[in-house]
Amino acid sequence: MSTIPRLFVMSDLVKGAPLALTSEQANYLFRVLRVEVGDSVRVFNGRHGEWAARVSEVMRSAGFLTVEKQIREQAKVSDLELLFAPLKKTRTDFVVEKATELGVSIIRPVLTQRTQTKVVRTDRLQKIAAEAAEQTERLDTPHVEQVEHLLERLGKWDGTRRLIFCDEEGDQARADSGDDTASRPLSMADAIAKLEPGPAAILIGPEGGFTDDERNRLRSLEFCIPVSLGPRVLRAETAAIAALSVWQAICGDWRNTSKD
Amino acid sequence: MSTIPRLFVMSDLVKGAPLALTSEQANYLFRVLRVEVGDSVRVFNGRHGEWAARVSEVMRSAGFLTVEKQIREQAKVSDLELLFAPLKKTRTDFVVEKATELGVSIIRPVLTQRTQTKVVRTDRLQKIAAEAAEQTERLDTPHVEQVEHLLERLGKWDGTRRLIFCDEEGDQARADSGDDTASRPLSMADAIAKLEPGPAAILIGPEGGFTDDERNRLRSLEFCIPVSLGPRVLRAETAAIAALSVWQAICGDWRNTSKD
Repeated sequence: MSTIPRLFVMSDLVKGAPLALTSEQANYLFRVLRVEVGDSVRVFNGRHGEWAARVSEVMRSAGFLTVEKQIREQAKVSDLELLFAPLKKTRTDFVVEKATELGVSIIRPVLTQRTQTKVVRTDRLQKIAAEAAEQTERLDTPHVEQVEHLLERLGKWDGTRRLIFCDEEGDQARADSGDDTASRPLSMADAIAKLEPGPAAILIGPEGGFTDDERNRLRSLEFCIPVSLGPRVLRAETAAIAALSVWQAICGDWRNTSKD
Repeated sequence: MSTIPRLFVMSDLVKGAPLALTSEQANYLFRVLRVEVGDSVRVFNGRHGEWAARVSEVMRSAGFLTVEKQIREQAKVSDLELLFAPLKKTRTDFVVEKATELGVSIIRPVLTQRTQTKVVRTDRLQKIAAEAAEQTERLDTPHVEQVEHLLERLGKWDGTRRLIFCDEEGDQARADSGDDTASRPLSMADAIAKLEPGPAAILIGPEGGFTDDERNRLRSLEFCIPVSLGPRVLRAETAAIAALSVWQAICGDWRNTSKD
């Protein structure tokens, strides 16, 4: 992995243009990494690929780079959303970081009937996503949406986007009722193996699972694909990472790396 | 998910037998969960399935259960090992917790040439694995092995066990050298899709990646299957969870749930 520092910036990236650092970026580069005038930095903005830049001015809590040369073209990313019920603070942070590493384009915190945590600081999560994108060599950062109710989101769903509904309760409800076959969701790999390429979203429930109302509503939707994540009970953050990984491996951009 | 407390115990499980609690288990049941005499508890030991039990005696920091009835038979688990280079403390804890949720049978911390953290408290990790197994409804706990050197482990490898080598450096080395095709590992889904069932292990490197020596050694081994985890750079703990999830989804016990 290249050790040249990598920053997500808001400005357009044009050869020769000066680029003003925020105080946080300046602090990170000059105090934490001890970067000096003339040193190399890489920058990306989600629109113009990745560029080599050089530090041209170091100030107390500011600074400038000069943008020099494009080193990677902007790549198309999977159109993959993550919908998840917010968790306690560090676990929500964790989901956002890992979803960024796993190439999600939009992160949507959604409230469900059993969601415990209702307050979501979107600006904070957006920052975590930007930092994770810098680390993971992505050319964009996922957009973190404002929190909304799951049913509200489903009400305005674009039906061309498939909703992969991770139905963790499926197994337990079955086991409890002694019914070994009814409404058993397909395993995720089987359910998604033959899908045509297209926009998708993955939905992970809160720790307490979805209510019967929510499950019935979800299962009645034409664009919804209920899937099982195996025989063990996964914590919500594990389920999110696992489902995103399996999606990318089977339908997403892990495949493209070997097929380009 | 059932709300009856669930404990991993060492003793044999036999109908009618009294079961002594450790002081930690007694503390957890009686002080944290406020369980009382007559309340239900579930127990498992990795050998005799899961049993319903009832609290028969509450003492200051001890107690007894009476084992009543088997509620699940011992199930066979995937023969899947995880080899990973130890990380900083909380991140190692995290890998052990998630590997347990994802159904790993043996966890092996291995030292590589670029491993930063060399001290591993196996007993502590074994405890984390047991707690995670209680939460995740597993019928066993993974065994955490003593730390050893990667090359030492490879030297005594049973060749019938496939080693899935997550070769994160593959892409970067290629990009740096401008060679766009040489030694590109297959994407994980493609590499494992057609494997015959059998014992497997997943190998995740340290943050700095494997050295060229290590990569060449690994790639020369007949039982080793190098795979790519996609175009982004994943942190070590993300790579571990992602690779285990994809394995279980495609070759492991996620499949069986829908096929049994």
